[in-house]
Amino acid sequence: MKEVGSLLSYRESIKLVDATLRDGGLVNDFFFTDEFVKDLYQTNIDAGVDYMEMGYRASKKVFDESKFGKWKFCSDDHIREIVGENDTNLKLAIMADIGRHDKNDFDEKVNSPVDLVRVATYIHQIPEAIDMIEDAAKKGYETTCNIMAISTNQENDLKAAIDMVCQTPVDVIYIVDSFGSIYPEEMARVVDLYANITSKYGKKLGIHAHNNQQLAFANTIECCGDGVDWLDATYMGMGRGAGNCSMELLTGFLKNPKYKLNPVLKFIEKDMMPLKEQGVVWGYDIPYFVTGLLNQHPRTAIQFIKDKRSDYSEYYNDMLIEG
Amino acid sequence: MKEVGSLLSYRESIKLVDATLRDGGLVNDFFFTDEFVKDLYQTNIDAGVDYMEMGYRASKKVFDESKFGKWKFCSDDHIREIVGENDTNLKLAIMADIGRHDKNDFDEKVNSPVDLVRVATYIHQIPEAIDMIEDAAKKGYETTCNIMAISTNQENDLKAAIDMVCQTPVDVIYIVDSFGSIYPEEMARVVDLYANITSKYGKKLGIHAHNNQQLAFANTIECCGDGVDWLDATYMGMGRGAGNCSMELLTGFLKNPKYKLNPVLKFIEKDMMPLKEQGVVWGYDIPYFVTGLLNQHPRTAIQFIKDKRSDYSEYYNDMLIEG
Repeated sequence: MKEVGSLLSYRESIKLVDATLRDGGLVNDFFFTDEFVKDLYQTNIDAGVDYMEMGYRASKKVFDESKFGKWKFCSDDHIREIVGENDTNLKLAIMADIGRHDKNDFDEKVNSPVDLVRVATYIHQIPEAIDMIEDAAKKGYETTCNIMAISTNQENDLKAAIDMVCQTPVDVIYIVDSFGSIYPEEMARVVDLYANITSKYGKKLGIHAHNNQQLAFANTIECCGDGVDWLDATYMGMGRGAGNCSMELLTGFLKNPKYKLNPVLKFIEKDMMPLKEQGVVWGYDIPYFVTGLLNQHPRTAIQFIKDKRSDYSEYYNDMLIEG
Repeated sequence: MKEVGSLLSYRESIKLVDATLRDGGLVNDFFFTDEFVKDLYQTNIDAGVDYMEMGYRASKKVFDESKFGKWKFCSDDHIREIVGENDTNLKLAIMADIGRHDKNDFDEKVNSPVDLVRVATYIHQIPEAIDMIEDAAKKGYETTCNIMAISTNQENDLKAAIDMVCQTPVDVIYIVDSFGSIYPEEMARVVDLYANITSKYGKKLGIHAHNNQQLAFANTIECCGDGVDWLDATYMGMGRGAGNCSMELLTGFLKNPKYKLNPVLKFIEKDMMPLKEQGVVWGYDIPYFVTGLLNQHPRTAIQFIKDKRSDYSEYYNDMLIEG
């Protein structure tokens, strides 16, 4: 049982990361209006958010630029159109998705408004992820390594991967519950597994949670209580499938007075509700629960919902056979 | 940190309680069709649910019978129309809401299909609750005591109340997070407070959670891991305001093979989706988060939503001033 004080006090070392454009972009193919992105940027400044993820920097050799909004590619020029030179306390992040990125798209930090490069990788791509981390760090960026879909990995493979990444200049290693399949009391053990390695190297830990079992917020605050400092959230939980930890819940929970709930609520009212009204769909739903429970990628659930099916029981039985 | 085994094994002593008709009835004034109630009854049998709460047995002297569906009053005759003599392993419960009940409406157990009387009380009504518990127990019913809105009570008052109730024949004392304001790590401390008293008297503990901060399921499984045996859930989380712990999540989580997810999903598909399509509204929403965060009754949030308002920030500021 944790100490009462840990709920009432706060750690200066906590970093609140807004991932709305990046994980939320997976819902609407990154077609956010400039007004939305400008409002989000100002809201993050006003709410005391520490980092704003502007999107993926995906390679145009891999993805057709005409099929996505610009935040899938997130050039320095795109970012400058919103933030100018970003003379604020809010730091900016972009994500490099291993296998879908090109490290030549990343200029020297001194020429870029970006502060942080987040490197997303599956465990079998770790050598390429390390190459990317080292390149970005050498160019002057802060870096994180987000090892995805860990709930499907063998524990020893995961330990080896974490150890390898710890030997790079990486600043933060993220626990990523891609499938929303981890329960809070398991999460406490996962943190323990990571921290046993990262603490030896002085690396920070982060958490990126999904809401398939309505546990994204619960898992995030579980991790926070277990000493994880970097906390991802998105406004109204916007993100692929069941979505993520909600920014409103997390800013309500965090006790550091620099975090403000009011701007978060204003942004939801002005910019998120219109998205919902336009029919952009994300959040907890039965098919996402099924993939979360069965520790599977949500792609079949996304298709199920797109097909307007509601034969949940048949879907569950199909998934059981596949699993 | 809990033991891994506790997640993989199961306790025979766990009881799964379906509260859909009762807490869900608060959303639609108890106007469920007989077909819905019959399907729910059969689903609970098939899914291995231990108790089904049929509704409130509210006094007709307090409420106008013409304004509510029959499950607000839940006579033995109403129940028999659905279950006959209920020759199954599923036990039946009804709720007596202190101050709105009449103990003369409760026949001897031997004449009733009801097995369990759940006594809902605020802390200042404890003497009347004790009177009701003693009366019901004498008539042959199992009993629980559900002390509501505990997040607003002084700890010493709560301890005194628990101790008083423990001196009755009550079987189970429920932890009720009426406002959905308790975080899981606080919940662990609340369980500790209750268990320190109830264990001396050999009483069981139960949990009834609300989803204002997307924590109903997380708090329920936190309690389960802390030794609480009686777990309330409702299908799709149907319940007042932000609703409750979802039956599908909980049957997915519980490891006792008698609990089956498939019937739960079938019922959702056939009976719950039509309710949603008819415009019956419950579940997590920003105003419920605000009342949960501020530890207040959801009535202002329910009104806010009924009025189709979306000025969340202004609402939050108003609530701050009131609180």
